[in-house]
Amino acid sequence: MPTPIDTCRQAIGPLDTGAMAAAAARWDMLTKPHGSLGRLESLACQVAGITGQPRPRLSERLAFVLAGDHGVTAEGVSAYPSDVTAQMVQNFIRGGAAINVLARLVGARVVVVDMGVDAELPASPGLLLRKIRRGTRNFAQQAAMTDEEALACVEAGMTLAETEISDGRTWVVTGEMGIGNTTASSAIVAAVTGAAVERVTGRGTGVAGTVLARKAEVIKQALERHRPNAQDALDILAKVGGFEIGGLAGIILGAAARRCPVVLDGLISTAAALLAVGLAPAVRDYLIAGHRSVEPGHGVALQFLGLEPVLDLELRLGEGSGGVLALSVLEAACRLLDEMATFGEAGVATEDVP
Amino acid sequence: MPTPIDTCRQAIGPLDTGAMAAAAARWDMLTKPHGSLGRLESLACQVAGITGQPRPRLSERLAFVLAGDHGVTAEGVSAYPSDVTAQMVQNFIRGGAAINVLARLVGARVVVVDMGVDAELPASPGLLLRKIRRGTRNFAQQAAMTDEEALACVEAGMTLAETEISDGRTWVVTGEMGIGNTTASSAIVAAVTGAAVERVTGRGTGVAGTVLARKAEVIKQALERHRPNAQDALDILAKVGGFEIGGLAGIILGAAARRCPVVLDGLISTAAALLAVGLAPAVRDYLIAGHRSVEPGHGVALQFLGLEPVLDLELRLGEGSGGVLALSVLEAACRLLDEMATFGEAGVATEDVP
Repeated sequence: MPTPIDTCRQAIGPLDTGAMAAAAARWDMLTKPHGSLGRLESLACQVAGITGQPRPRLSERLAFVLAGDHGVTAEGVSAYPSDVTAQMVQNFIRGGAAINVLARLVGARVVVVDMGVDAELPASPGLLLRKIRRGTRNFAQQAAMTDEEALACVEAGMTLAETEISDGRTWVVTGEMGIGNTTASSAIVAAVTGAAVERVTGRGTGVAGTVLARKAEVIKQALERHRPNAQDALDILAKVGGFEIGGLAGIILGAAARRCPVVLDGLISTAAALLAVGLAPAVRDYLIAGHRSVEPGHGVALQFLGLEPVLDLELRLGEGSGGVLALSVLEAACRLLDEMATFGEAGVATEDVP
Repeated sequence: MPTPIDTCRQAIGPLDTGAMAAAAARWDMLTKPHGSLGRLESLACQVAGITGQPRPRLSERLAFVLAGDHGVTAEGVSAYPSDVTAQMVQNFIRGGAAINVLARLVGARVVVVDMGVDAELPASPGLLLRKIRRGTRNFAQQAAMTDEEALACVEAGMTLAETEISDGRTWVVTGEMGIGNTTASSAIVAAVTGAAVERVTGRGTGVAGTVLARKAEVIKQALERHRPNAQDALDILAKVGGFEIGGLAGIILGAAARRCPVVLDGLISTAAALLAVGLAPAVRDYLIAGHRSVEPGHGVALQFLGLEPVLDLELRLGEGSGGVLALSVLEAACRLLDEMATFGEAGVATEDVP
């Protein structure tokens, strides 16, 4: 019997090449020199292929912010205490965080999900409770989660995508909050890509010096201890991942199955994308890298996925902030394709072909 | 007696360092790791310094699109005929061009100005007539304009800034349309920076091969013939410039005098900025590079001005398109600074200082 992940994998088809060709042909009819809108042209063509619409008009913008805690913080790898995860979830609910400000600006809905915060969060209309467990285990000592928990958080993400987004009409942004989750994400990037741990480990919320060296050492030892199978995304997730990361992988799968573009934020989102692509390789074409984070592991993950980011603003915040910021550019690309006048409509002479 | 340019130069003060320090202090109180919003933090601080407001909220967005024709097109340096300038002005007025679509998206007003189109454009409520002359002279044979015309177009730009923008409240985007104006702009960049003509000459609307080589040759010979004085912006403008470029230089001066941020588009806007900085060096701090164009001369000009662009999307359209696109990011930076909750307000623990 197929598992939910199998079913989702089978639902993720290739991009619609007919819609892409129609979009490309329209770009060349619009009142501008051929190709002069650069990446805006290729991005809109990708969205045409994802949605199957030659002139895509996506009406909904949705930022998922998944929260979870990490047992590995016991190793002293972060500049902030774990309590901050729960405190920031309250900040999201009250609308005071960066993601809230940015979402208001672009008209995006923020869906905050407790995937594994190490606190009993009070029920709130602004919060979905999908807690797998109060934080992962410390992966310096044991697997971060059981195989069942790994499957459960991915499936929870797939279900979230199914209930929250509309077929071919939603820009989906992946965001997260979780003290310690750059440590887990760097471990995932190293496990999937085979890159050296030092190359993929960065400052996170702001560690440096000996703490940064300790962070890399913890990741290195964990990978040596657990030996995750690079070909098995669920194995990697269970051994060194996080509940919010698994949840995001599920959302990415579910969004692609519904022909929606997935706009990735930074390192953690892209680590989740590595896992999603491991589970269903066709998902790759549905991904748009919202920005390039200063985290070195992000660049390695983007290169592995063959993604070129929309923005490069030296951000390292997370929450989905860089993804939501990129929506303005992506929206602009689609509006230009749809709304600009053609040479014929405007009575403008076309290029002198030399 | 001081000239209008002298008066404007004297009105352009240094950035307000008090407002900048207050903005920087506020960034560090907001619920995010220190510095994690990267360039958004420094951009908002710059806008604080420009406007003198510690939490800048600019309420108006304005894209100037100045149009002019270029006698040098007689040398066969462009892929499009000069007629396209006037045709595109009509397209701007009817709302069908890229700049119109982008301006609608961000709520910017588009001010279209005929600075020197080689056609009698019909009066229209959407068009300001400030024509200096029907096109510049062919600078391969003589100076593009007289000294009086050079002064007149800069002063017209200063007056436009004075009448159209509000002190400290308007995002000003510089845009243009003019077949042949990458040729004039590359010549200006070479004249001001001393860079080799081959390094600053690009494909413009789409020329390549022998036409591109011809374009560089025309610029090189013109600079040898006219020998513009690198220290004299008006001399450079008169010899190899354009009416829309001089007009933009005037707008940049006027906007800085009114403490408004100037968001530059691509090569042509940045060539105008080089002239504006030549006329009033303090103007430099009021400039924000909206994007990095694929035109090689743009990179040289940005480096000369010490500007790092907000976006890099391989655009080469002009019209102000890259500048307006950058407004979303700039607006986001200011809104984050103003609206995010502080650690105290949100009850979030601050960084563990190691």
